[in-house]
Amino acid sequence: MELGLIGLGKMGGNMRERIRQAGHTVVGYDRNPDLADVGSLKELVETLSAPRVVWIMVPAGAPTQSTVDELGDLLSPGDLVIDGGNSRWTDDKRHAEQLAFKGIGFVDAGVSGGVWGLQNGYALMVGGKAEDVAKVQPIFDALKPAGDYGFVHAGSAGAGHFAKMVHNGIEYAMMQAYAEGWELLEAVPEVTDVHEVFRSWKEGTVIRSWLLDLAVNALDDDEHLEALRGYADDSGEGRWTVEAAIDHAVPLPAITASLFARFSSRQEDSPAMKMIAALRNQFGGHAVTDASGHTAKEHKAPGN
Amino acid sequence: MELGLIGLGKMGGNMRERIRQAGHTVVGYDRNPDLADVGSLKELVETLSAPRVVWIMVPAGAPTQSTVDELGDLLSPGDLVIDGGNSRWTDDKRHAEQLAFKGIGFVDAGVSGGVWGLQNGYALMVGGKAEDVAKVQPIFDALKPAGDYGFVHAGSAGAGHFAKMVHNGIEYAMMQAYAEGWELLEAVPEVTDVHEVFRSWKEGTVIRSWLLDLAVNALDDDEHLEALRGYADDSGEGRWTVEAAIDHAVPLPAITASLFARFSSRQEDSPAMKMIAALRNQFGGHAVTDASGHTAKEHKAPGN
Amino acid sequence: MELGLIGLGKMGGNMRERIRQAGHTVVGYDRNPDLADVGSLKELVETLSAPRVVWIMVPAGAPTQSTVDELGDLLSPGDLVIDGGNSRWTDDKRHAEQLAFKGIGFVDAGVSGGVWGLQNGYALMVGGKAEDVAKVQPIFDALKPAGDYGFVHAGSAGAGHFAKMVHNGIEYAMMQAYAEGWELLEAVPEVTDVHEVFRSWKEGTVIRSWLLDLAVNALDDDEHLEALRGYADDSGEGRWTVEAAIDHAVPLPAITASLFARFSSRQEDSPAMKMIAALRNQFGGHAVTDASGHTAKEHKAPGN
Amino acid sequence: MELGLIGLGKMGGNMRERIRQAGHTVVGYDRNPDLADVGSLKELVETLSAPRVVWIMVPAGAPTQSTVDELGDLLSPGDLVIDGGNSRWTDDKRHAEQLAFKGIGFVDAGVSGGVWGLQNGYALMVGGKAEDVAKVQPIFDALKPAGDYGFVHAGSAGAGHFAKMVHNGIEYAMMQAYAEGWELLEAVPEVTDVHEVFRSWKEGTVIRSWLLDLAVNALDDDEHLEALRGYADDSGEGRWTVEAAIDHAVPLPAITASLFARFSSRQEDSPAMKMIAALRNQFGGHAVTDASGHTAKEHKAPGN
Repeated sequence: MELGLIGLGKMGGNMRERIRQAGHTVVGYDRNPDLADVGSLKELVETLSAPRVVWIMVPAGAPTQSTVDELGDLLSPGDLVIDGGNSRWTDDKRHAEQLAFKGIGFVDAGVSGGVWGLQNGYALMVGGKAEDVAKVQPIFDALKPAGDYGFVHAGSAGAGHFAKMVHNGIEYAMMQAYAEGWELLEAVPEVTDVHEVFRSWKEGTVIRSWLLDLAVNALDDDEHLEALRGYADDSGEGRWTVEAAIDHAVPLPAITASLFARFSSRQEDSPAMKMIAALRNQFGGHAVTDASGHTAKEHKAPGN
Repeated sequence: MELGLIGLGKMGGNMRERIRQAGHTVVGYDRNPDLADVGSLKELVETLSAPRVVWIMVPAGAPTQSTVDELGDLLSPGDLVIDGGNSRWTDDKRHAEQLAFKGIGFVDAGVSGGVWGLQNGYALMVGGKAEDVAKVQPIFDALKPAGDYGFVHAGSAGAGHFAKMVHNGIEYAMMQAYAEGWELLEAVPEVTDVHEVFRSWKEGTVIRSWLLDLAVNALDDDEHLEALRGYADDSGEGRWTVEAAIDHAVPLPAITASLFARFSSRQEDSPAMKMIAALRNQFGGHAVTDASGHTAKEHKAPGN
Repeated sequence: MELGLIGLGKMGGNMRERIRQAGHTVVGYDRNPDLADVGSLKELVETLSAPRVVWIMVPAGAPTQSTVDELGDLLSPGDLVIDGGNSRWTDDKRHAEQLAFKGIGFVDAGVSGGVWGLQNGYALMVGGKAEDVAKVQPIFDALKPAGDYGFVHAGSAGAGHFAKMVHNGIEYAMMQAYAEGWELLEAVPEVTDVHEVFRSWKEGTVIRSWLLDLAVNALDDDEHLEALRGYADDSGEGRWTVEAAIDHAVPLPAITASLFARFSSRQEDSPAMKMIAALRNQFGGHAVTDASGHTAKEHKAPGN
Repeated sequence: MELGLIGLGKMGGNMRERIRQAGHTVVGYDRNPDLADVGSLKELVETLSAPRVVWIMVPAGAPTQSTVDELGDLLSPGDLVIDGGNSRWTDDKRHAEQLAFKGIGFVDAGVSGGVWGLQNGYALMVGGKAEDVAKVQPIFDALKPAGDYGFVHAGSAGAGHFAKMVHNGIEYAMMQAYAEGWELLEAVPEVTDVHEVFRSWKEGTVIRSWLLDLAVNALDDDEHLEALRGYADDSGEGRWTVEAAIDHAVPLPAITASLFARFSSRQEDSPAMKMIAALRNQFGGHAVTDASGHTAKEHKAPGN
């Protein structure tokens, strides 16, 4: 089938290649003319035959919103838009309504796979009406991994990005689980080969997983991860997961702890712990460490 | 080679079978005569030729301690004891010293695999002196999964159980990760098929794992887990993991959250939350729910 | 001075009394005619002399929004609206702009004090322009506690409710701190009089506080809180605090733990812990407890 | 009455002064002869008339143990030892038995008050037999704050230090509560005067407390705590609180989060977060920050 694909970055570019390898026609647009097949969204829409199917693969938020807006103007009733980016699931409902008003269908697709997706396939979690999902199924089949898994129609508009968001929340906590275990093993002198411990876990254990395999790969390169700083960004989906949990009064302690660990990793110094240090000094006369790293004179309580 | 095996319960019995399938001789002892090959520890020791290798597979704590004590009396210099149970790693050092005093070697082995170990092999994490580990290697090779993984000599005495303990700590947090994600997905009406979402994750995702496969198996049996209560025991290793982290000043927020979630799951009612309810009532005149489930009369502040 | 006061429930009614005791004129409106001084918002506005000052004390969300909308129509340029309810701080900016468009001033006021406020005074945290805050200062002075504290102009529109929101977040974690300590003390047989331990803490300790005094009051009534269920609602501000923290990448582990403890307290059974139980059963053949509380038959792994 | 006091550091020295101000006789010993009234423990024991009461105020662990051992040799049946240091409560039972074997009584006393104790009094939580506690009551009365609070006989041997330990655990979480709230307020541009917000909370709020007063004192000195580093030691009691909770399967999420925040504050870099960074790089080609702070080249998945 024929697909318009907007956004040909790391993810979008590889997806175009995988879809083409499956025998479909992809007309790609990107702001970077070196990557694009056409020069504008208008040209992309004109190149496709109706009913058109256009996949958006641009950053979440304003870029996706403006693309949806523009497509709403360019496309015709009966056409279909897929948002395969990392949009917040609450945006999907709005986009679905906005496009439905013009007779245009909408499907949201959470896409997992990262840099490995081109060769292994992309896991897809999609939301939308069954008849809309069916129209894109050949593309989904091209993108998904071989085998029985890696694709789900999770529910109505937004359900795809919601499922992908939860996937990422789970991912945060799984990564944190391995990271905490690794730190603890590294802290104990009796355990002399943490790298080999991790490697041994790849078979026969309860905790074997693809993430564990990646951890072993990383330790193969740098046994004590000495070349790295303990600094981790977050992509938004972990935050949204916690916010969704709060909306539904679902306790999420491990996932939230993992998110907060990332926040902390990005702080040069912790304001909260400054307050702890200040309080300890006030009530106990505990030594404090000043901003230059020197141990400061102790506070004296009145009367002492 | 020849092995004495003490403890022929669910784990020990299957291990005996797997070791025998590899062509080794196992003399098994259990308090239950229906399971045992010999009638006593003394008989087990007499049946084996020196230098003897005896594997203990009994519950941690007092049963393991009394077995180590008894073996210390029965065995001879040059013999070797393996503790393959779930002993706390701090016990291993004591046992190693106790036996070394009599010229008997000691190896601790953390064993993972559960009911799947007989067919898939058991992951083994061992601690002790290299020459002692080498003496048991044929048995380790028989027990471990096929392939390059599933066995590690992690360090000195205690390192095997320490690595297994951390494995279980990681396991707690991974299980909690999936559990939190599942609860959140179930809470949202837009996601209409959580079971299929989980199934789809088996390929192409970052969170694919053996535990995920098990989760899908469980949902295959009971889509909303309606037949289960949200009640989870803990086997001790999660607690020890947190205690070891505290000893080494290692922050372990996700693993600890997972442990506490299990503690909470076993409380009929939360004493702490009674205090929260009492305080809310005191300062805000918030309605409280009494022990019988009825909303009680509000506390009135003096002067109102 | 003259004040219009909308909403004469538990809080609003007491506040009217305290303001009147200070010698000001309050014209109160409530949907309940038994509480109201006037029959409608229109009548309230007509009764006041310009420039009018009107304090909204109704539930956050839709009720506050519709009151702001209505006042926007009824009031005149130069008049001033105060939102003293529990509005989310992000609403304040919108309300400020909406009213500013009509020349009407806006101040947000977070109010603490609960049922004790009438006699002890209400702590007030306000946001808005300095000239608007100045117009209401006599009312603030009437409401606040005697002494040097209990009132702050925290910043621009929204800052008052933001400060009050954070106050409540801190409150959650302080309550949780006492609650956790109480539960632990109650769990240990060596400590025979937890009630007296709490009482003793009222002087000379680092943790003495008004909340501790309330905890002692509660234990005076019911030493082991046996009449209460461990069930706690949350009023919204705890959730908003965590959401604001996520927006600003501020780690908030203790406050969030306190919020999640409340969520958990309201669950009959934990869906997440059902998944934990299911997983334990899958990999370990651990006994599970079924929904009726009986220990169920163990799952058998294939081949056993 | 007459008291032997061993350990005349910051706490012990002030306590000696407060006890003397109440009219009692204190014979003090310290390793530092400038502080001591007598030259040795032996001389201290000889100076006191039987039945003697000796208060130990030295660091927990080895110093306390060796003092108990030495007193066990020097004292006579009918004498009494009080451990007022920060001993772990599990040590108290052992000390009580060790001394009881020689006919010597034992009382454990948790002491709160810090540098403010001399003027305000020390809160005391004591454990032991009622008849032993009664023998020291005049000293307890001298040390405790004026008024009805600040002293409790909490239970049998160990209960005093247990109650003090829990006091400190609560203290950790209360400090964390204020610290988190402060950090969040500081993060938001709309709130222009966080110092004044904290000051305003001193009256009329739910969260007013002595610790809040101290926080305000600290902010009076240094509005944004710019002179401090976010670094906090822990004195042991927070760790023991979590360990006691684990022993009794009591979930303690807020207190534990507070302890872990201190652990994190002392890490130059987080090993766990290095692993998170490594994993993100492996699966997503996310940029990593190397140990020197530079953004490193991205890892390329095979096939790209």
